[in-house]
Amino acid sequence: MNICEDMGQSSLIDRFRGGDVRALARVITSVENSGGLLPAELMPIFNRTERAFRIGITGPPGAGKSTLTDGLCALYRRERKTVGIIAVDPTSPFSGGALLGDRIRMNRAGLDPGVYIRSMATRGNLGGLAEAALDAADILDAFGKDIIILETVGVGQSELDIARATDSTIVVLVPESGDGVQAMKAGLMEIGDVFVLNKADRPSAERAAGELKTALELKYHEDSWNPPVIPTIANRSEGVGDLLDALKHHWRTLAESGLLKEKRRNRRRERIRQLVNGELRRSMWNEDRLELLEKRLDEGDNPFSIAAELKKDFLKKR
Amino acid sequence: MNICEDMGQSSLIDRFRGGDVRALARVITSVENSGGLLPAELMPIFNRTERAFRIGITGPPGAGKSTLTDGLCALYRRERKTVGIIAVDPTSPFSGGALLGDRIRMNRAGLDPGVYIRSMATRGNLGGLAEAALDAADILDAFGKDIIILETVGVGQSELDIARATDSTIVVLVPESGDGVQAMKAGLMEIGDVFVLNKADRPSAERAAGELKTALELKYHEDSWNPPVIPTIANRSEGVGDLLDALKHHWRTLAESGLLKEKRRNRRRERIRQLVNGELRRSMWNEDRLELLEKRLDEGDNPFSIAAELKKDFLKKR
Repeated sequence: MNICEDMGQSSLIDRFRGGDVRALARVITSVENSGGLLPAELMPIFNRTERAFRIGITGPPGAGKSTLTDGLCALYRRERKTVGIIAVDPTSPFSGGALLGDRIRMNRAGLDPGVYIRSMATRGNLGGLAEAALDAADILDAFGKDIIILETVGVGQSELDIARATDSTIVVLVPESGDGVQAMKAGLMEIGDVFVLNKADRPSAERAAGELKTALELKYHEDSWNPPVIPTIANRSEGVGDLLDALKHHWRTLAESGLLKEKRRNRRRERIRQLVNGELRRSMWNEDRLELLEKRLDEGDNPFSIAAELKKDFLKKR
Repeated sequence: MNICEDMGQSSLIDRFRGGDVRALARVITSVENSGGLLPAELMPIFNRTERAFRIGITGPPGAGKSTLTDGLCALYRRERKTVGIIAVDPTSPFSGGALLGDRIRMNRAGLDPGVYIRSMATRGNLGGLAEAALDAADILDAFGKDIIILETVGVGQSELDIARATDSTIVVLVPESGDGVQAMKAGLMEIGDVFVLNKADRPSAERAAGELKTALELKYHEDSWNPPVIPTIANRSEGVGDLLDALKHHWRTLAESGLLKEKRRNRRRERIRQLVNGELRRSMWNEDRLELLEKRLDEGDNPFSIAAELKKDFLKKR
């Protein structure tokens, strides 16, 4: 089904270009539903990607990521920057998490047309969630958002993939999660450009910040960028201004060193590879071949010979 | 390069069939290195897959998964069952985690030829780790292990994929992680067949167990299997026998209801789809096409038109 059916294709693209939020939502939904593939008729919207500053924010559940995201968003809005937020919850495979987030936020940001918030929960496919989130980021970029914030829970593969696909990644920790070893084990130390120690009014905060700084110094003493540790109390908006400054500093450093250009090229490369791989998967698994697969499963053949047969069938029929 | 080169192909397969642990390690490594693809010459080893009982064990870092795994392993050994353990650490994208686990375990289990332990850290590809772990499980199964335990850290997509690919999944929680909401948010409630509340000697354990049971009852009251909650103190081996009984009970229930057969068919189906998708990706991204991709990136084309061109090139040249 053509997704532009009931408003006309050119009309949807025109409205998207004209800044219509409902058209934006529609485009994101259509990409989500098509399994990470942009329908051909929407390709024209991608004439001006890669303009926005992309921020990733990650950390354990309950660390205060959403509150910090909202605080940053408010500061960017004061600078008249438009903001797109993608809240990704890959830990909720069946239902719940992302929807809950939606509901909480609906009242707050729904009124500011300069902010667009989208929640995403996991999809069936391996890696599908990361793809969908990055698609949404590209779409928000094309829509003209100045700042795009990708908020992810936890430390699984999709979160790492998302973090790698942003210009700057914020890792949010709280004093309790701060015994250093756990954070390092969780792979968070490697992906953070800026570290936030939230709930910094808790008794153990100073010690935790010290440990975190030591761990970072051991790791980064030879790099051009030393990730700072910013103490915040997000629910009282304390320290969010410092976080904003750190992000700006990081972005400037990236731009000056040429790393920003490199990061973005890597991102485009990965994006294209994902697009092609996704396209191949979709062409491969048509109804005929799914049926053949079930037949062979009934017959109890060796998985490898079934796989070989299916691949051969695909390449023969093209 | 043919991986069987220096010991002769038939010799490697013969030694694998003969129960040679070095041949087993070699086969797993070769699959790992080939990106989840079984080299064609090794296919004959898969004549007797899907015989072992496959157990997944997951939960937050520090909950005691390794200790429980070792405790279960010891009990199975007393029953003269052979055991294969795959310890997966997807949260360690660069180095560290999985290797550390290896080193700790080396002394303990290295002496018992009835136990084979393999650690795996993440690989570059999206979803590659889950694939590699499931490959290793198939190989251990073909090798003749009676019990295969897949141990994973955290709650990311790969862990969920691994959990879905086992016969029974154990979710390990500790009283501190037990405020119910967090566990549910993390998607753990949905994947557990048996829940363990480890460190059950801690003061808050009873309350945590109660909350967990209530949450499970709300969720499962209409199903044929109600996941039990087993209190354990793994480092004193307390409760591990109860866990073993619960696993046996779950497996029996699965087998009697026909669900075991269904689960295994689903597993085979997913496996074959992964094999084909992986094969297509590998055929796609040969040097010529990687070069073409770089050229187009230089030229700054639209990602979608580059992707379309590359896909067309692939299908034309086959």
